Amino acid sequence: MSDTAAKKAIVDFVLKVTKEGSPDFVPVAERIAVFDNDGTLWCERPVPFQAVFMLDRVKALAPQHPEWKEKEPFASLLKGDLKAALAGGERDALQVLMATHAGMTTDEFRKIVEDWISTARHPKTGRLYTEMVYQPMLELLAYLRANGFKTFIVSGGGIEFMRPWAEKVYGIPPEQVVGSSIKTKYEIRDGKPVLVRLPEANFIDDQAGKPVGIHTHIGRRPIAAFGNSDGDQQMLQWTAAGGGARFMCLIHHTDAEREWAYDKIAMGSLEKALDEAKTRGWTVISMKDDWKRVFPFDTE
Amino acid sequence: MSDTAAKKAIVDFVLKVTKEGSPDFVPVAERIAVFDNDGTLWCERPVPFQAVFMLDRVKALAPQHPEWKEKEPFASLLKGDLKAALAGGERDALQVLMATHAGMTTDEFRKIVEDWISTARHPKTGRLYTEMVYQPMLELLAYLRANGFKTFIVSGGGIEFMRPWAEKVYGIPPEQVVGSSIKTKYEIRDGKPVLVRLPEANFIDDQAGKPVGIHTHIGRRPIAAFGNSDGDQQMLQWTAAGGGARFMCLIHHTDAEREWAYDKIAMGSLEKALDEAKTRGWTVISMKDDWKRVFPFDTE
Repeated sequence: MSDTAAKKAIVDFVLKVTKEGSPDFVPVAERIAVFDNDGTLWCERPVPFQAVFMLDRVKALAPQHPEWKEKEPFASLLKGDLKAALAGGERDALQVLMATHAGMTTDEFRKIVEDWISTARHPKTGRLYTEMVYQPMLELLAYLRANGFKTFIVSGGGIEFMRPWAEKVYGIPPEQVVGSSIKTKYEIRDGKPVLVRLPEANFIDDQAGKPVGIHTHIGRRPIAAFGNSDGDQQMLQWTAAGGGARFMCLIHHTDAEREWAYDKIAMGSLEKALDEAKTRGWTVISMKDDWKRVFPFDTE
Repeated sequence: MSDTAAKKAIVDFVLKVTKEGSPDFVPVAERIAVFDNDGTLWCERPVPFQAVFMLDRVKALAPQHPEWKEKEPFASLLKGDLKAALAGGERDALQVLMATHAGMTTDEFRKIVEDWISTARHPKTGRLYTEMVYQPMLELLAYLRANGFKTFIVSGGGIEFMRPWAEKVYGIPPEQVVGSSIKTKYEIRDGKPVLVRLPEANFIDDQAGKPVGIHTHIGRRPIAAFGNSDGDQQMLQWTAAGGGARFMCLIHHTDAEREWAYDKIAMGSLEKALDEAKTRGWTVISMKDDWKRVFPFDTE
């Protein structure tokens, strides 16, 4: 990160909460920092990466579902027309989600994600999706942990889509990943216990769901929160409402050259949260102005 | 703990999973140990302590609910007849649970629990409930953590009933407590964000729910699991079904003098899990034979 006001704000915050005897000192156990994932820790353009995973799963499963050729939204997906497929709204999206994310055991699903994430490549850069992470955010995660923070992901994305690679890529272990989920059921199959993924929504970790997810999984209020869209607004509000020193931050996608410049997109607009950030003095990081490098593979 | 076969089994397990180069070596990140709470980490007699909390809440709230004098199960509860109150079955119990555990914010509920746990006393010993914990289990938690383990509670009890004191009493932080829960909802009240506890079940962390709770909160399989009842059987099965070295253990309540001797009780019998432990060679700790002290306040 460049030496800008945003960086200074982060460093000042960390210095004051870690300085023993300071009125803002926070014990190590309470140094909880939460991060959105899509658009905050890794890129989310041209579409969120889990949507690509879903599309690739539809393609892989199509031979077992000849009826999909005639059936929307599967027919459009198989023609590669993600936009037409998503036009059907939430109900169609849920149908595809369940067809691709449920029905297998949790171990089987992890293997499917591991195989995909180690081979699938970003359509614009040709890089693995795990290379499409933001270098300054990797440095920030490491910096916070070096200062006694526990770092959590709190994402609208699927919790089991992130866990298989989050530890390797971000240094965030599975027990510190919070996300959306479907229900699972314990069963004995062939004498062996398994957890079967059911085609039934369990929890949506987005917008007002994020403070709920934080409360369920972490059980205490974060003192720092990082997001990039209106889906993160409530998480930042919830973090801000605690006593003592707090740090709320939005990543603003302002770099059309090295990444993307956008505020309004189909999934994950930044409007209301940006207004609130300006009103309340939350830190806004401009990718264009504040980041020397965007991706690890960029040259400075 | 006395130097018995059970203690030797635990130490042997820890030595082999922590010895680098050993075929059973487990990296620190994967050293996950899970513990039931009621009857495993603390006492659960004459009734589980959260039931006493519930009763005390009914008494405290009764002035605001004059109709309870005539209305079961509240009427029996107010007369102190827990047995009659519980006779109404799950539906009545749920009604009392919601009347006492829902309707307030999460911050308000934490305060209620903190006040209760710091003052309420066990009917037999006159001790605070947080003193009714098992000394050898405190030592075991510390021993495992000293060997790189992350220790989690996985209890049928309420997650928000345990979190306010688990860190102080067991050294287990809120984010490592898994339990049963009701739903919460994010709201802005008087300009301040709150999470309101709703009278609606969210998750029951018991029996086949325990592997589900482990998967949701921890996201990887434990290598050691400790329980004391049939409610823990599936958690032990799930732990046992992973690859590599595993440690499954039941605490057997065999000490009528220093604690209680029981297998069959209204809530939390030990029958099927004990059979499975014998068949599969899981470790069974006899409180009478294996423990020098039961409670921290006991003399050896």
